[in-house]
Amino acid sequence: PPLASPPAPVNLWASLTVPETTAIHAWLESSEQNLNLTRADISMISDNVVFMIEAYQPPKAEALAYLSSPKTVPRPDRYARVTIHHGAAQVPFIKDYLVGPMPVSSKTTMRPLTEIYHRDEIPFNAYGFASISELQHFLAQLVEPLGDAMEELFGASARGLPNDTLIAGSSAPFSFDGSFRRMWVTWRHNKPGPYLLPVGFYQYVDISGTDASQWKILKVVYNHQSFPSTASFLDAFHNGTLARLPRRPDQKDSTWTQRKRVGKPRDLDHLPGPRSVSFAGLRFRVDKARQYVSWMGWGMYLAFDRDMGLSLWDVRLKGERVIYQLAPQEAIAQYSGNDPLQTTTAWLDRFFGMGGLVRDMIPGYDCPLEAVYLPATTYSSAGSIKRERAICIFEQDTGKPISRHYGYMEGEFGAVKGYTLTVRSISTVGNYDYLFDYTFHLDGTMEVRVSASGYLQGGFWEDDQKPYGASIRDTTMGNLHDHIINFKVDLDIAGTSNSLLHTTTEQEEVTQPWFDDDWGQTVIQQRIDRNYITNENDALVKYPTNFQGGYAFVNQAEKNAWGNPRGYTIHPGYSPVHNTVVGSKRLFNNANWARYNLAVSRRKDTEPASSSMWNLHLPGAPMVDFHKFFDGENITQEDLVAWVNLGMHHLPQAEDSPNTKTNVATSSFMLSPLNYFDSDISLESMNAIFLHSP
Amino acid sequence: PPLASPPAPVNLWASLTVPETTAIHAWLESSEQNLNLTRADISMISDNVVFMIEAYQPPKAEALAYLSSPKTVPRPDRYARVTIHHGAAQVPFIKDYLVGPMPVSSKTTMRPLTEIYHRDEIPFNAYGFASISELQHFLAQLVEPLGDAMEELFGASARGLPNDTLIAGSSAPFSFDGSFRRMWVTWRHNKPGPYLLPVGFYQYVDISGTDASQWKILKVVYNHQSFPSTASFLDAFHNGTLARLPRRPDQKDSTWTQRKRVGKPRDLDHLPGPRSVSFAGLRFRVDKARQYVSWMGWGMYLAFDRDMGLSLWDVRLKGERVIYQLAPQEAIAQYSGNDPLQTTTAWLDRFFGMGGLVRDMIPGYDCPLEAVYLPATTYSSAGSIKRERAICIFEQDTGKPISRHYGYMEGEFGAVKGYTLTVRSISTVGNYDYLFDYTFHLDGTMEVRVSASGYLQGGFWEDDQKPYGASIRDTTMGNLHDHIINFKVDLDIAGTSNSLLHTTTEQEEVTQPWFDDDWGQTVIQQRIDRNYITNENDALVKYPTNFQGGYAFVNQAEKNAWGNPRGYTIHPGYSPVHNTVVGSKRLFNNANWARYNLAVSRRKDTEPASSSMWNLHLPGAPMVDFHKFFDGENITQEDLVAWVNLGMHHLPQAEDSPNTKTNVATSSFMLSPLNYFDSDISLESMNAIFLHSP
Ligand SMILES: [Ca+2]
Ligand SMILES: [Ca+2]
Ligand SMILES: [Ca+2]
Ligand SMILES: [Ca+2]
Ligand SMILES: [Cu+2]
Ligand SMILES: [Cu+2]
Repeated sequence: PPLASPPAPVNLWASLTVPETTAIHAWLESSEQNLNLTRADISMISDNVVFMIEAYQPPKAEALAYLSSPKTVPRPDRYARVTIHHGAAQVPFIKDYLVGPMPVSSKTTMRPLTEIYHRDEIPFNAYGFASISELQHFLAQLVEPLGDAMEELFGASARGLPNDTLIAGSSAPFSFDGSFRRMWVTWRHNKPGPYLLPVGFYQYVDISGTDASQWKILKVVYNHQSFPSTASFLDAFHNGTLARLPRRPDQKDSTWTQRKRVGKPRDLDHLPGPRSVSFAGLRFRVDKARQYVSWMGWGMYLAFDRDMGLSLWDVRLKGERVIYQLAPQEAIAQYSGNDPLQTTTAWLDRFFGMGGLVRDMIPGYDCPLEAVYLPATTYSSAGSIKRERAICIFEQDTGKPISRHYGYMEGEFGAVKGYTLTVRSISTVGNYDYLFDYTFHLDGTMEVRVSASGYLQGGFWEDDQKPYGASIRDTTMGNLHDHIINFKVDLDIAGTSNSLLHTTTEQEEVTQPWFDDDWGQTVIQQRIDRNYITNENDALVKYPTNFQGGYAFVNQAEKNAWGNPRGYTIHPGYSPVHNTVVGSKRLFNNANWARYNLAVSRRKDTEPASSSMWNLHLPGAPMVDFHKFFDGENITQEDLVAWVNLGMHHLPQAEDSPNTKTNVATSSFMLSPLNYFDSDISLESMNAIFLHSP
Repeated sequence: PPLASPPAPVNLWASLTVPETTAIHAWLESSEQNLNLTRADISMISDNVVFMIEAYQPPKAEALAYLSSPKTVPRPDRYARVTIHHGAAQVPFIKDYLVGPMPVSSKTTMRPLTEIYHRDEIPFNAYGFASISELQHFLAQLVEPLGDAMEELFGASARGLPNDTLIAGSSAPFSFDGSFRRMWVTWRHNKPGPYLLPVGFYQYVDISGTDASQWKILKVVYNHQSFPSTASFLDAFHNGTLARLPRRPDQKDSTWTQRKRVGKPRDLDHLPGPRSVSFAGLRFRVDKARQYVSWMGWGMYLAFDRDMGLSLWDVRLKGERVIYQLAPQEAIAQYSGNDPLQTTTAWLDRFFGMGGLVRDMIPGYDCPLEAVYLPATTYSSAGSIKRERAICIFEQDTGKPISRHYGYMEGEFGAVKGYTLTVRSISTVGNYDYLFDYTFHLDGTMEVRVSASGYLQGGFWEDDQKPYGASIRDTTMGNLHDHIINFKVDLDIAGTSNSLLHTTTEQEEVTQPWFDDDWGQTVIQQRIDRNYITNENDALVKYPTNFQGGYAFVNQAEKNAWGNPRGYTIHPGYSPVHNTVVGSKRLFNNANWARYNLAVSRRKDTEPASSSMWNLHLPGAPMVDFHKFFDGENITQEDLVAWVNLGMHHLPQAEDSPNTKTNVATSSFMLSPLNYFDSDISLESMNAIFLHSP
């Protein structure tokens, strides 16, 4: 693609390079720091391990100062966030540190990073996996006495061997507040799409703390029968009192869980489909080194992190900043069912690392053939991961005019072709694939869209499960769940001083001097009420019934030519939903953003994200407690940030097999100019055809 | 495009050909019929005129019998619907007739068509315009004494001359129940986009009946001042008591109401944008003569009528009928404001004829360059109108996989490219352009989408208007309105015996034997409740709060392989809204479908449409009263039809100028298989790539 010209020569939000992380790692390991570190690949849980080294985003004020004059203002100091598992401490703990400034020098220091969290310590029981050798060993021990029983019950075995025909999965969260670490282990056939092949056998295990010798089994559950130990389960198995599950033909033949082409090809499908070609070259610009993209007046820097992957920074339209930061924050999936796994599972995928789990996209399939790919590098305790095709960028002809009219008078005819630019990243978190799309339009609108594919988290189908999903195969069901995905949208509309405009509509009865007997002396009509929400506590909101009204960021001090405050509206798109369940202990306080369609708070450097990777395992006492952002501050003409949700109520059905379809499993919101301009700017397009009266 | 093979050699729903209408016209004019007809172009309102000659759709039972065996079952008799204005009758009336069978022969007869209406007679005051010469003459008389005053007040004149610099517009409805015909006349600058250039001058006129000499002016309104006559208005004008509107610079310079390219071109916009090319030829088939289209297992007949344009018939997927008829029914736009026009306007565009108003689409702009166009012919009293480019059909690469997974095991990798086929028609009704899109997906999903563009119905901006819109220029505003568009969706899911499945979700508290103290003895989770709505009176429904649940057509007697009744779900898409205002006299009973998101009734040949062209002017006593469809019938395993709404709450803003943008002014619903299949059929695609473990 043609080379872009970013507004500043430095991408302030760029990931650390591999040499940078290596330098920090070496600095951390140096004896001066006295951290007693063990390399992750040979570590035990009871070691001190560097879990994460990542760029830490600069204070916004410093970034804006630099961007306002990159030639004269020095760039903000660059810092790394470092997460260390202090497993070797007498009372093990996890700590985040800020290390910098960079590059590493004699000035580099390290300090605890605590101001972005709502509790003092990161409980050790909420740790992320740096190494799973002890867990694997524990699971092997767990199933050792069960080998024959499992073989008989499930026709497959798990004995901790490389050729095991069953593999383990688990529920989450592991803890309520960090005081324990316990999980339900589930067993699945070790075949493609194991998520659809659970055998229905569960152990509840306690894996608290750093001493794996203390780990223990608490319960064994099979076919609604709960046993306090492996021995008592085996007793029942041997003495014939165990009520057994029926035969499960769909677990013998598992071709159906594969992504193989099936059935008869459709008519003319042997021909290649339509292909988008830019015959005179691409019309968007990319600066690969700085990860900067521009297209038709839009420009943005890209960043990428382990927790949530792609984010957009300093998004400008026609030279003016519209968004400082646009970044996904968290994705929850809360399940239902009648078995130990589904009833207790509420995933928060930030724990697993949506960014770290980005894989190489499949050219021509995941993105159109002309797409340009950008790489992303994330750190993991197992070593840096570089994906060459982590992000794709492409322009599309939408196939319809963005505006058109076919009138009667000269000057009334014409159409502007609709083109869009999409920036995409796809993350596969275990069974699920999330497609993150940021689509820019010629008129200043952009759409944020998440589409889901991948495997359902399946369960055992029986009639009692009807309220929790549907059968998708002989004895297999897809389990009911809600997906809710939170985005941080730091809109800066005509500057950072913004207010939250709340619009509602209702009906009224009016009278006018010209009304008469024929129609009566009153008319019922619609009216708009506009008010500003002034306190952030009132800004935890849901879309109104029938979408009669909405929310916008406006700058009350900056008006367009016709006297309206310039604004951008947050417009619901596909599937504008929030989480159904309120009050579940598994999501007690760790994902309260999911209760709303959106929320607006004062923007703070100390509130960089609505979640953290440890929130998954701390529903009762999360590291980031979203509701604490809402502490009664005034949000009139302040720097505001919107926390906007996408989501989907996923009621599984046969057509989710083998994989969920992105055309119906999709949700979006739009950010669209609201009296931001004086008229429609898409009329600037060279593709604004102007016809004569025919 | 490649030639299609329709399932039957006859399109049962095809429009009449010009020779057919000519033959019927001749037959009607023959002395035997004794109709005393006058040709429309030379007619007066007090003449008998043929207003419409159009194909009448055959009874469904006959059509299905024929389609089940086109080689052995004769095709249903073909009939025409003929509308005659009996203006010459002592008490003038309008009547619909059925004429047939066709072709015209000695067997052809004519009978009143009344069974599809809810009142015996079509009131003459609700007539559609066959000729407007008398109205033009009346308006010229109306403004004759006002010429100088209008010239001074507005800097423009209307004197009934070809070079008039003002043109008239009007409000609607003209009547409540047909007992009168009255309208508010508004005056607009005769420049491109006159809808945005109203001068704020109104006359309320009575144009009841067929004797134009009796027509009269009832009121004159200017700047909130109401006068009982032209004379009293002129008195005030001359004696200096008339409070005048301020100067209106935006009405002098009206370049802003044109669709001319403006501003600086964007970066790289001199290059052509990406273009979709089917390098090995098109993959959809078209039978132009029969207006039949097929693509990737989908097939459908197209029909086209004056009232609402394009409709789809006998839509089959993989040989099985999914939809018998899919057709738009009506489009309302209900306005608000503080002037006589906006306060009293609730358009029902079927009156104007969405089909008759279809214009030739602009290749490459209204549809992609590769699109195939189909013609449509509609009858009008001024003569048949043939549009060569009334319908376009094109395939698109959606740019994203319809499903994909990037797993860990062989068999878990892959993506199916997303392709869609779109059938589009665009109708321009005065100021507005409606894009009707029917988009078919590989998995059996189809999306019905309406996008709007064109000019706002503008008003005079003053502070008092804040509840009714926003300023879009110095003294011009866009007025608040709701668009609601109704579709008839005659789904036939695995046959015609269908039931309406209503799904809701809620939260529940459960207990299980394996719950323990650590998390507590209960869990709060989501559950699904499924029930069948058995009475059509209970099937006038809105989408639930937070979209927790939905509606589907299922055949309880036909199960998929896993025991679930086969169904299709009606899935909300963009902007799933219903009308805001309830109880307005302007929409009293003539568009009651707009109160809901959807409704389901027993399918009847006698209930072919939810509206009629006369409904606009009969809100108090409509020809088709939608609520009368809902007469308590049981809808269990019956032939059902869904009446589904799209819409948009249009709160105007500066970016609606000069024209509304289709990317935000858009609404859709999806019809998607629900356990209709045993698994996702899009995996049949030859573009289902299957990768090996990398
Ligand atoms: Ca706050
Ligand atoms: Ca902001
Ligand atoms: Ca009925
Ligand atoms: Ca039906
Ligand atoms: Cu899901
Ligand atoms: Cu509108």
